[in-house]
Amino acid sequence: VVARDGTGERALTTDGGPDVLNGKLDWVYQEEIYGRGNFQGFWWSPDSRRLAFLALDQTPVPTYTIVDHRGVHPEVDVMRYPKAGDPNPRARLGVVDAAGGEPRWVDLAAYPIDDRLIVRVGWTPDASAVVVQVQNRIQTWLDFLLADPESGSVQGLFRDQTPAWIEPTDGPWWFDGGRKLLWLSERDGYRHLYAYDRSGKLLRRLTEGAWEVDEVHGVDESQGAVYVTADSDDVKGAQLYRVALDGSGMTRISEGAGSHSISMAPSQRYYVDSFSSLRDLGRLALHRSDGALLREIDRVPDGLGAQYGLRPGEFVQVQARDGFAMECWLLKPSGFDPARRYPVVCFTYAGPHAPQVRDRFGGFNLLFHQLLAQEGYLIWVCDNRSASGKGLVSAAGVYKNFGEEELRDLEDGLDWLLAQGYADPERVGIWGWSYGGYMSAYALTHSERFKLGISGAPVTDWRLYDSIYTERYMGLPAENPKGYEKSSVIAAAKHLSGKLLLIHGTIDENVHMQNTLQLAHALQQAGKDFELMLYPGNRHHVGNPAQRKHLYGMMAEFIRRNL
Amino acid sequence: VVARDGTGERALTTDGGPDVLNGKLDWVYQEEIYGRGNFQGFWWSPDSRRLAFLALDQTPVPTYTIVDHRGVHPEVDVMRYPKAGDPNPRARLGVVDAAGGEPRWVDLAAYPIDDRLIVRVGWTPDASAVVVQVQNRIQTWLDFLLADPESGSVQGLFRDQTPAWIEPTDGPWWFDGGRKLLWLSERDGYRHLYAYDRSGKLLRRLTEGAWEVDEVHGVDESQGAVYVTADSDDVKGAQLYRVALDGSGMTRISEGAGSHSISMAPSQRYYVDSFSSLRDLGRLALHRSDGALLREIDRVPDGLGAQYGLRPGEFVQVQARDGFAMECWLLKPSGFDPARRYPVVCFTYAGPHAPQVRDRFGGFNLLFHQLLAQEGYLIWVCDNRSASGKGLVSAAGVYKNFGEEELRDLEDGLDWLLAQGYADPERVGIWGWSYGGYMSAYALTHSERFKLGISGAPVTDWRLYDSIYTERYMGLPAENPKGYEKSSVIAAAKHLSGKLLLIHGTIDENVHMQNTLQLAHALQQAGKDFELMLYPGNRHHVGNPAQRKHLYGMMAEFIRRNL
Repeated sequence: VVARDGTGERALTTDGGPDVLNGKLDWVYQEEIYGRGNFQGFWWSPDSRRLAFLALDQTPVPTYTIVDHRGVHPEVDVMRYPKAGDPNPRARLGVVDAAGGEPRWVDLAAYPIDDRLIVRVGWTPDASAVVVQVQNRIQTWLDFLLADPESGSVQGLFRDQTPAWIEPTDGPWWFDGGRKLLWLSERDGYRHLYAYDRSGKLLRRLTEGAWEVDEVHGVDESQGAVYVTADSDDVKGAQLYRVALDGSGMTRISEGAGSHSISMAPSQRYYVDSFSSLRDLGRLALHRSDGALLREIDRVPDGLGAQYGLRPGEFVQVQARDGFAMECWLLKPSGFDPARRYPVVCFTYAGPHAPQVRDRFGGFNLLFHQLLAQEGYLIWVCDNRSASGKGLVSAAGVYKNFGEEELRDLEDGLDWLLAQGYADPERVGIWGWSYGGYMSAYALTHSERFKLGISGAPVTDWRLYDSIYTERYMGLPAENPKGYEKSSVIAAAKHLSGKLLLIHGTIDENVHMQNTLQLAHALQQAGKDFELMLYPGNRHHVGNPAQRKHLYGMMAEFIRRNL
Repeated sequence: VVARDGTGERALTTDGGPDVLNGKLDWVYQEEIYGRGNFQGFWWSPDSRRLAFLALDQTPVPTYTIVDHRGVHPEVDVMRYPKAGDPNPRARLGVVDAAGGEPRWVDLAAYPIDDRLIVRVGWTPDASAVVVQVQNRIQTWLDFLLADPESGSVQGLFRDQTPAWIEPTDGPWWFDGGRKLLWLSERDGYRHLYAYDRSGKLLRRLTEGAWEVDEVHGVDESQGAVYVTADSDDVKGAQLYRVALDGSGMTRISEGAGSHSISMAPSQRYYVDSFSSLRDLGRLALHRSDGALLREIDRVPDGLGAQYGLRPGEFVQVQARDGFAMECWLLKPSGFDPARRYPVVCFTYAGPHAPQVRDRFGGFNLLFHQLLAQEGYLIWVCDNRSASGKGLVSAAGVYKNFGEEELRDLEDGLDWLLAQGYADPERVGIWGWSYGGYMSAYALTHSERFKLGISGAPVTDWRLYDSIYTERYMGLPAENPKGYEKSSVIAAAKHLSGKLLLIHGTIDENVHMQNTLQLAHALQQAGKDFELMLYPGNRHHVGNPAQRKHLYGMMAEFIRRNL
């Protein structure tokens, strides 16, 4: 940590180095706790006098070597990357004065350093205490602490817990002059708002129901309210609400079915709404926080979608075999004729809390799916329950057992589609990226219903993915060996049926190319045919425009050839 | 270098380490000078009193990193590997007493250490001098020296030179009580035997003609003769000859057209002949050195080939456009009907001095080619002139310009085949491995006559291959930039025509996977379709039995699908 002001810069810590990070996150903290692309590991006190900072010692973390094969002498990146069960970076929390001096350390001795994640850090509004959230490495509980920035002594406010795991979420949000706080918890199976006092006493819950609060935009004490985005009206959409701090209920502010992405001004008096839905390609507008439209900033011209032949498709709700209501999206081929039988391309992500069936325009694969539908394919996206966004209560079924339940749900969804009579059961393909790549490869090795699978940047065995994500859902490999084995695509390579296309970016530092190469190895050993494509110089996302074009062209060709 | 005798072991040198090799060869010296698999870099004196040893300092050599992606935590091999133009290992030659003591260094100050290769080391029969052969790094000359093992001072006997390059060969072979020596030289365009005295004076040449001495088995002073294998009767075969030391000519000893592989007893009185030809699957026999058969050791039973449907195919000699006589081999489809038109699979290696059209049984791809012929493909192997084994005079045309002449010859060979009327010009494929992989990819990017190419473990740009092989033929990249650019497949990616399948072992330490990935990258950037398969855990040869089966199955399927 280096301070720079008008008088130059000075080091506030001195023991940092390649493996000891002060105020800077390592890869796994960035990706799995603080959010992709956020490497900042220090937090100013509100009075600007101090900084709290994470000190991460990566020394015990094994390395993974990534070679970028472009260039005569390839660049080599030896990164610290804890795979499931590996030692995590050792995390401590320091406080240092902006003026300099020795750091103090927050006393976390109650949490063994090899079983400790520091998942959120902040300050109370009066700067008198550091807010610390600590979890065990497999993330079955979360402790909310306040720490004295001078002595480092801590006071535990409460422990949050669920029947399964706890995801890191932002918060708290302070009110009543810093005497009370709001907290998001999934403890009853859905993410809802709770109010606590500063001693850790639960005052009341503010929201309740079979839906979730997705985001908290801030407290407006003058209104006695907090602004949140929630999915109470439609799980596929997102609306802005005002929730009374006294627990007396909530009022919807945004208008129009679809997805409202809100950027609230710090004063809580105005917000910008970035809106789209399946039928509305996009609008951007400034509103007063009571919802009144002040000014439309921009909008996608009417008719633009039609000009390119883009069609909205349709939402379908499908009952799984046990009655669970799955949200699905169907895009029929151009010139659809219900008397014909069309090939089906299923798209999936399937990972916990990551719904793909959304009432909004765009998304990763929009144009690809529109193109395929124009060529005569049915596009089918079905959110299995763990991915559905319908609360932890729906997601927890995959706890310690990835793959099985997701596939059963996807098959149930497919059954509905086939029952309509216009889909050809002999020509069904599945594709996805990342967890969706895992799911596609899992489907081809654990089901015989798919004639084709495209597995992009897949995890192929959860022992190969990072500790913090994987252990949250799967526990430790040593404690759940059967779960890891059952969920492994590699272990099931000999059961492959259908045509598989494996794709990976060679310098993917997130899901390592190792996953694809190990599955390739297992398929070769098992005498199974498959296809392979690697994208040199690309990471988890094939971002280079020319290579991205090649990717989609190749996938389309693979689908045409095999369906 | 460590000596071990009845009294234990003792270090004869003490400054060795990971980057300073005493008595042990580095990768490039092993692969390109002393022969694949031979890492021994020390040579006993005939009186067992001393050792000469190479000291190779790899410090200036860049590293190449190879990841074996199997295992949760992949193994990483950071190897020293000089690519074309990179610093080579710095080579010195030491002499040390077996009893111990300080090494002495041979005085090679006349050869700048960064432009010096020590390509052969040995001793005179009386142990009074170390025999040293030194070349410049681009290998346009070779100096033959004797060194005093005490003082290290050297005496130059002669410099060998050709209009192009000099390949390292074994020798010398001493006779006349160590007063004279035999030497193999390509100086007149064919590899022939020459006799020198110990002062370096040329006494006479022993062989001459438009053919080559392939191997020297040893001198029998009692007969006044040297035993050699040569191709004077048929360039496609190999026969044993006795050559008189006085220059009065040679006598053939082995019988039967085909390839005789000779293992001569040190006494020169007996030899074992391992023989095969296109029609004779194999015999192993003990002979007296006058050729008399003493005992047949083993033979492949008659009729075994027919039992598996193996057919010998036929040799064809084809005139290139300028009259050069190319040796070719044709295997017609089973049940061949000259009125039909068959698809063609060309196999190529094409690299300097590496003929594939041989009058012998077996070889790398025998069964694959027999299988394809049984399925209805014409198999066509044509030795372009640089690969032909017809002397440096035929090989030197590719000097500083790989690719162009080889392709022209292959096209001329193909023209002959197409002129026969039974080959379908619209269904011609080409495949090969290593240099043959280069040639196949080069053909698809520099010709439109091939509908399909399989490029196994290819060099795709000679800047990516090792210094000693590449510079021998192509010179230095800095001095021949146009030649490197013209010969590059990567630079021609946008001209790809036909279906290309790229294959590589992921841990190939010889031709790095980098070659295939860089070509893949260039093809993607150019919007070109191609297929890719990698074999994890395999080096330059896909040796794992299950993966090897997968490889040939996949290649056959690729050919069936596209021809």
